Amino acid sequence: MNSDDTRFLADFEAMGTFGATPAGGVDRQAATEPDLAQRGWLRDLLTDHGMRVVHDRIGNQFGLVERVPGAPYVVVGSHMDSQPTAGRFDGAYGVLAALHAVSRAARADTAEGADPAYNLAVVNWFNEEGSRFPPSMMGSAVYTGRLPLETALAVRDRAGVSVAEALAGTGFLGEGEGPEAAFCAEIHVEQGRVLEESGATIGLVEATWAARKYRVVVSGEQAHSGAAVMADRRDALLGASMLVVAARDLADRFPGVLHTAVGSMDVYPNSPVVVASRAELLLDLRSNDEEVLAEADRLLREHVTRVEESASVSVELEQSHAWGVDPFQPEGVELARAGAEKLGLSHRRVRTVAGHDSVNMKNRVPTVMLFVPSVEGISHNEAEYTTDADLVSGLDVLTEVVRRLGRGELPSTGVHDPAARD
Amino acid sequence: MNSDDTRFLADFEAMGTFGATPAGGVDRQAATEPDLAQRGWLRDLLTDHGMRVVHDRIGNQFGLVERVPGAPYVVVGSHMDSQPTAGRFDGAYGVLAALHAVSRAARADTAEGADPAYNLAVVNWFNEEGSRFPPSMMGSAVYTGRLPLETALAVRDRAGVSVAEALAGTGFLGEGEGPEAAFCAEIHVEQGRVLEESGATIGLVEATWAARKYRVVVSGEQAHSGAAVMADRRDALLGASMLVVAARDLADRFPGVLHTAVGSMDVYPNSPVVVASRAELLLDLRSNDEEVLAEADRLLREHVTRVEESASVSVELEQSHAWGVDPFQPEGVELARAGAEKLGLSHRRVRTVAGHDSVNMKNRVPTVMLFVPSVEGISHNEAEYTTDADLVSGLDVLTEVVRRLGRGELPSTGVHDPAARD
Repeated sequence: MNSDDTRFLADFEAMGTFGATPAGGVDRQAATEPDLAQRGWLRDLLTDHGMRVVHDRIGNQFGLVERVPGAPYVVVGSHMDSQPTAGRFDGAYGVLAALHAVSRAARADTAEGADPAYNLAVVNWFNEEGSRFPPSMMGSAVYTGRLPLETALAVRDRAGVSVAEALAGTGFLGEGEGPEAAFCAEIHVEQGRVLEESGATIGLVEATWAARKYRVVVSGEQAHSGAAVMADRRDALLGASMLVVAARDLADRFPGVLHTAVGSMDVYPNSPVVVASRAELLLDLRSNDEEVLAEADRLLREHVTRVEESASVSVELEQSHAWGVDPFQPEGVELARAGAEKLGLSHRRVRTVAGHDSVNMKNRVPTVMLFVPSVEGISHNEAEYTTDADLVSGLDVLTEVVRRLGRGELPSTGVHDPAARD
Repeated sequence: MNSDDTRFLADFEAMGTFGATPAGGVDRQAATEPDLAQRGWLRDLLTDHGMRVVHDRIGNQFGLVERVPGAPYVVVGSHMDSQPTAGRFDGAYGVLAALHAVSRAARADTAEGADPAYNLAVVNWFNEEGSRFPPSMMGSAVYTGRLPLETALAVRDRAGVSVAEALAGTGFLGEGEGPEAAFCAEIHVEQGRVLEESGATIGLVEATWAARKYRVVVSGEQAHSGAAVMADRRDALLGASMLVVAARDLADRFPGVLHTAVGSMDVYPNSPVVVASRAELLLDLRSNDEEVLAEADRLLREHVTRVEESASVSVELEQSHAWGVDPFQPEGVELARAGAEKLGLSHRRVRTVAGHDSVNMKNRVPTVMLFVPSVEGISHNEAEYTTDADLVSGLDVLTEVVRRLGRGELPSTGVHDPAARD
């Protein structure tokens, strides 16, 4: 390990102090005090590395290395916000690795007198987690034009604070659209066990699992939870609970190829002696097979009808977002493979079940996504862990990828359509 | 309807303005601003009626009519706090009817030169609903010694505010134990359909349904709700949902004689992309048959074991409180019957499924509980409604009951044990 690696690991150590929890994790929900404090820290670190810091209209934070006047950018990064009780690696590793990779790549290109084709940018995407302000991947969704800016800024957290209000006056909300991207790269911990079980160090992400996400509102009627006759009850919490169980039953019907989840449920009035009149939940279906996903969607709608009848409630099922089994550009996967190969690091192709900002970006520009192993696949958990050796290996491959993209080794094909961004 | 009745109905109209909601209901959770404002209004009204206002150590509010030096009190009242979206009648009617009944009884006794045996007190019990600060019936539970004062004062709401903090500086928290009760009386809207369906105006409450209430904590482990392999998941929200469904299944197994409910569920971290690590719910079983209740408890525990296995979670089931099929003193029921009979009002014996402050009080002193009809049995709902005629009939019977209790028509038997109050 060289002194650059040591500095990287020391910086990573410092990152984990923002919003640190007693159990060794972090709590840095988007635009909360620890997230904002860490953004200040990153701004200073980007500046120390000679980059120009800019923010776009949704609070994405960029560090620019401008070396080819007027050329678009290789945009490299991830996110620094976290779930309420999260691990130190998710997102944060990708932003810091991007900063060090861009810095190393720029220095190496200069030292070698290389003739770069593109500028470089580090990015800290705003609100990837979506736990405070849904939906997730908000910053990259606005940047790529998938989500209207006004919609995103108007989203409110459970306390009624909007994204616009949370970012106002922080210095982290800009006015422009950010740098124009020609390519994108992201490195992330795997959040699964494929690399660990196969013994590979570098995951070359070739495609996403398909996903459909739903916002479900179950409506019933308030009544005294003791006195009301059972047959008269229209219990929203009962209906919502039946749907949670139904979602799990769906996954059990397609073992290994369908993941289902309900992570959040809000109940009103949520009083021990009142039958709930309303419950709202967010339900996900994910599969590596789009036909399975379509069948699961059909079965879910059948369950909804059954729940409406048996719990005497009404259910509103709104598909909030969805994506298919989308490939990353094969040329990007090949470029990353060649980079890992050159460095003598073991690698394998993997798919991502989780969404990432890169999943948004790959629909706009050729995008390379890398994984490093995550011990026992533990994720969204304070016990999340990746070894120093793997972190450094990932940084090495990412640096190689950034250099190759910056030199123009990949054709910037017509996928990129800046006009589509608004 | 005489001018006294008109004044009573006008006062009741005024009551409904505190915490009024657009849909015609009220929101007056314990020690919130509207509850405190209404307490100020009641204090002034009690004073206007010549009563001395005192508050005890848990914020129960009393209006005293002292006419027999040193004698204990007939304590008459209900509660003014409400659920978050509640009707105007639940509790509030009972407090205002108590104020008018005590005032009328005292005036009538004086006018007739009667020789009363007991003093009279109106009471507004603190926090009967328990929606902000569980458990319900807090004020009467502390007054009767069922709940330690320190425990009650330390209960915190979801925002972290304790009962002690919420009452501090309001002028509604006293230092003493309140007046000593010899008897208790309460009138309440039925929250069921028995009176309506039988055509009776006055319900003579002869017993409670039995109840067991549980605090259930389901513990799992955080994971990425998309990426984590289904078989690895320990989903607390899934486990909690299975218990909600199981509770309903139990009720369906004993139709008409078992009521079950889960009204509240809190999920952590409650994020769309995180498998929940913890869910807490409050589960009730109620029956008019103690054997059914015992069998339901046994079956519930079997369900818990099954849920632990199938959802890979651990479940902590703690019985928070319980009561049996408890009779009200038969002499009190007979006294109320005689009162209704004298006034020519139709009546019938009923049981109460819901808990009331009187249920706590009857374990300390002979207690009379009366119901008036509730249209369609709607309760804990903004659409709750009782006709003016029924409200006035209830007030008439309550006045008669207060006069009879105040004259000493019922023996104050050894049930009352002031020493047990702490």
